[in-house]
Amino acid sequence: MSLKNDLYLRAHRGDNLERYPVWLMRQAGRILPEYREVRSKMGGFKTLVETPEFASEVTIQPVDILDVDAAIIFSDILVVPEAMGLPYQMVEQRGPWFDKTIRTSEQLALLDTNIDVYDRLSYVFEAIKITKRELKDRVPLIGFAGAPWTILCYMVEGKGSKTFSESRKLLYTNPALAHELLNRISDVTIDYLKGQLEAGADALQLFDSWAGILGRDQYATFGLAYIRKIVQAFEGVPFTVFSKGAVASLEDIASLPCTALGLDWNMEVNLARRIVGESKTLQGNLDPCVLYGSNKLIENETIKMLKSFKSHRHIVNLGHGVYPDIDPEKVKVFIKTIKNYEL
Amino acid sequence: MSLKNDLYLRAHRGDNLERYPVWLMRQAGRILPEYREVRSKMGGFKTLVETPEFASEVTIQPVDILDVDAAIIFSDILVVPEAMGLPYQMVEQRGPWFDKTIRTSEQLALLDTNIDVYDRLSYVFEAIKITKRELKDRVPLIGFAGAPWTILCYMVEGKGSKTFSESRKLLYTNPALAHELLNRISDVTIDYLKGQLEAGADALQLFDSWAGILGRDQYATFGLAYIRKIVQAFEGVPFTVFSKGAVASLEDIASLPCTALGLDWNMEVNLARRIVGESKTLQGNLDPCVLYGSNKLIENETIKMLKSFKSHRHIVNLGHGVYPDIDPEKVKVFIKTIKNYEL
Repeated sequence: MSLKNDLYLRAHRGDNLERYPVWLMRQAGRILPEYREVRSKMGGFKTLVETPEFASEVTIQPVDILDVDAAIIFSDILVVPEAMGLPYQMVEQRGPWFDKTIRTSEQLALLDTNIDVYDRLSYVFEAIKITKRELKDRVPLIGFAGAPWTILCYMVEGKGSKTFSESRKLLYTNPALAHELLNRISDVTIDYLKGQLEAGADALQLFDSWAGILGRDQYATFGLAYIRKIVQAFEGVPFTVFSKGAVASLEDIASLPCTALGLDWNMEVNLARRIVGESKTLQGNLDPCVLYGSNKLIENETIKMLKSFKSHRHIVNLGHGVYPDIDPEKVKVFIKTIKNYEL
Repeated sequence: MSLKNDLYLRAHRGDNLERYPVWLMRQAGRILPEYREVRSKMGGFKTLVETPEFASEVTIQPVDILDVDAAIIFSDILVVPEAMGLPYQMVEQRGPWFDKTIRTSEQLALLDTNIDVYDRLSYVFEAIKITKRELKDRVPLIGFAGAPWTILCYMVEGKGSKTFSESRKLLYTNPALAHELLNRISDVTIDYLKGQLEAGADALQLFDSWAGILGRDQYATFGLAYIRKIVQAFEGVPFTVFSKGAVASLEDIASLPCTALGLDWNMEVNLARRIVGESKTLQGNLDPCVLYGSNKLIENETIKMLKSFKSHRHIVNLGHGVYPDIDPEKVKVFIKTIKNYEL
């Protein structure tokens, strides 16, 4: 199977590129009317995640409509805690909600053990298989998971939070419990990502949405140690780590054995490149708010961003998931600007 | 008026200290049962803010109960937008709420102009006067305001937000409007802080809670430029700037003409000291979650933090406001550890 457009994969390898590849975090969903139609047919976000044919349909929509250089499987990072025995709901306007949380060893003991990821998350693997078939090798398909620290945050907190203070509290009051939970999340995540590769994913990404709420030492201990364990299980696979907000930990992140690092919109590209060197591809990092601007502003800011990377080891993306009220026409201006940019 | 305990002010000046001064962001309120009693008598947070005798009472409570080295006037950063014509409510469990927001020049035009801060915010000045009288020069009293960028965020968004994307959108779609609003907030803030000094405040602090959502360039333009304007109006006054989360902007922040900089819990102290040098006092930065731990853990983590600062130019604080469910006895352990620490 040779891909018609393999720019994204070549950028991971550090090959010379004729132009930069581009995709958007959260491209599958949110902004497209075509997505909202499918979701409303399904009766909600979670049913859509769990229904392979339709998850596959919305995965491919941005390839057809926005002309991005990679697809990312439509799913949610919270399918992992659910597979471990902690079901969640996605509450409209409010975000995720877990009825049970893990704050004590008694609660940890209630989690399922020796789970068969292939069985519990078969709907994701099935969606990947359908997507690969329907994509007809036009662009690569990215599989993903949440990083263990971020997954722990949701399992301990049970919902979103400004401070995630229950999760951070655990690191001081019961670090052994935190490590035990992080280890179990990591093991399930490795199985899960292997399953995604076997189902046909061409590359992988870990999302650590709450990396930025830890200081450097704690993030090294409770965040990066587990990311490293996961990444080490995927030698030779194009693998991106996105530690959102962890600007203080860039040096540590740079030493991970992955092929690409995601940068959020307020990470300085020059600084990141200086720290990371040319050994890794950098992914990002246009401020998603730029897409609220005029076409001219989008072109100017995109070109400014492209120039700041000063290297062919660049996969273009936003510095955060695309915001729900962005006009898809503005995304097209962004993508066209990148495709017209001469290297 | 000579203060019995002027450690906090001497730390601002860089004088030699026999021990480090300590106070806690959000020390007036939240954690103390004595505070919750007064607040419930008042019928809520906002009435308490607006009732000088009781605002003064809860300002002094932590001096009596926790033995801190400075008092900070009990108030809210949102009194400034309210004085400008944008009233707010504080909704239990949900945070601030504004009925009107500023997203267009028409809406900006509806704000009050040439307001008399001395009249509109007289309740704060009155609370400061009462507090100074009742404190009987035991410790200095800190006055404060929100930094213009953070105040703009609330005026544009109308409530709290994870991304403040409406506010960031404005910086791209109508930067002139943003600058106009920031200028007006800055002017009112200067008057407001002058009023606080005249009423008796011994020092000032600006809180920029949402500094961390901007990249370095935007924070320089829309954040620090206005903070600089304010700080410049207070030469010779002990003045702390706390730009939460702005680790990428530390070099720029270091050049402000203020006497102290606040560090949040995930800023690396070594890095901050290297950038700032010995020209400024650093304030912070124990992770507030440490106070969930055992007494032994609190002692150890506090001493580790104290050692990391390696300089007498240090005012001890948490790296964020104290969390509401912290046991006041744990705060006492923190404070005792600092007072027993030999310089």
